[in-house]
Amino acid sequence: MKISKTHPRYESLKYRHRLVEGLKKGYVTQSGLISHGRGEAFDYLIGEKTIPEAWEAEKAAVALMLLSKDPVISVNGNTAALCPKELVDLAVSLDAKLEVNLYYRTLKREKLIERILKKNGAEEVYGVGRKANKVVPNLDSDRSKVDSLGIWASDVVLVPLEDGDRVESLVAMGKKVVSIDLNPVSRTTRKASIAIVDNVVRAAANMIRLAADMKGMDREALKSVLDGFDNGENLEKTIRTMRQDIS
Amino acid sequence: MKISKTHPRYESLKYRHRLVEGLKKGYVTQSGLISHGRGEAFDYLIGEKTIPEAWEAEKAAVALMLLSKDPVISVNGNTAALCPKELVDLAVSLDAKLEVNLYYRTLKREKLIERILKKNGAEEVYGVGRKANKVVPNLDSDRSKVDSLGIWASDVVLVPLEDGDRVESLVAMGKKVVSIDLNPVSRTTRKASIAIVDNVVRAAANMIRLAADMKGMDREALKSVLDGFDNGENLEKTIRTMRQDIS
Repeated sequence: MKISKTHPRYESLKYRHRLVEGLKKGYVTQSGLISHGRGEAFDYLIGEKTIPEAWEAEKAAVALMLLSKDPVISVNGNTAALCPKELVDLAVSLDAKLEVNLYYRTLKREKLIERILKKNGAEEVYGVGRKANKVVPNLDSDRSKVDSLGIWASDVVLVPLEDGDRVESLVAMGKKVVSIDLNPVSRTTRKASIAIVDNVVRAAANMIRLAADMKGMDREALKSVLDGFDNGENLEKTIRTMRQDIS
Repeated sequence: MKISKTHPRYESLKYRHRLVEGLKKGYVTQSGLISHGRGEAFDYLIGEKTIPEAWEAEKAAVALMLLSKDPVISVNGNTAALCPKELVDLAVSLDAKLEVNLYYRTLKREKLIERILKKNGAEEVYGVGRKANKVVPNLDSDRSKVDSLGIWASDVVLVPLEDGDRVESLVAMGKKVVSIDLNPVSRTTRKASIAIVDNVVRAAANMIRLAADMKGMDREALKSVLDGFDNGENLEKTIRTMRQDIS
């Protein structure tokens, strides 16, 4: 499929195409396509751009992850299809691990995603096969399987395009959770320590830029960025902004 | 796949399941899954219920279709998967024709949808194979192919889950177009003669009930229902309601 760059929906069609390719290869699921459609609708409502509240949350998330001891970025089929290069670059920028975590876990899907991440420059990918040898309590489905050296041991987890159950269970384990989810009222968004309401492709690119800028800051400066961010207040503003944008 | 009726997302999962079945059988497309996801997000925003403005639009649409000479209901892969029985019953209630119209048209998909509609009680299905022998002007893709005895000859077309291009082209042909689309700001919604912002499953069920009630009304009474409906005003109210519902 060739998409003309002048097509008004070029960007949107490009990412749809990536997902459909991922479905053909076997690491994106049919549910993943439906979820992407939901995301598209919310993105449409915010004008397909990063709103100021999202930028603030991204900045706080980068501060949190730079301050953390052992940050992990959780990768599923959709994010592997949409922006693998950005995820790898972000992991490098934040000195974070990359871990595969899937709702519908099969070794084939895990290995396909591992391969994509490695092709995009990842040195190590956690959570594949037997490495996912620990179980997050109170969480059904295979999402509960985590790597003892990855999410299990982490203090901060970035979960793009995730479900609310999993965010809750990770928070209950005492971890800080950063979500990226376009739905401003989803359980994922409401339960996250820092909720980024943005398209994962834009959020990852923004966070790479922010990490480059903030890497030179000392811990006190990073802490003050983090302390200056109120997640609840930011979410309220996000919802107000989205309401204004529907017109 | 068995879904427990007590699952909080039972309804939503049931319809997803129907689409995935349609994909497996070959008449729903991958793009159709993504579109469904978009619809889910908007439905979520309106609380997954028929808002009063939608009910008003449905009533006006039924009046328009009962007054029309030759109404046609356009059926695509998603609507055939989601609510084939309702579409057939609605066609009977309104004395309307059913016509298959697809973005990605293949004889296989057309015939599968025809079979589903017939299995659900349709006597005749228009727009299949060589019967789609006319071309709607100024419309790319196979959506432009219509049946000379169906949409081509019609005065009113009901287009559930349709795209804006097609609505515009049909309106340009002098037809009245009723849309069913959960996106309140889509081109489909903005270009339709009567825009119903509701889930197609609920809208079809509501319109069947309304048609039963309104069938006994004389033309003057139907005309006054129609004249009492202002589509632009109703859409403005819809957007206000949706804005209020995001909270």
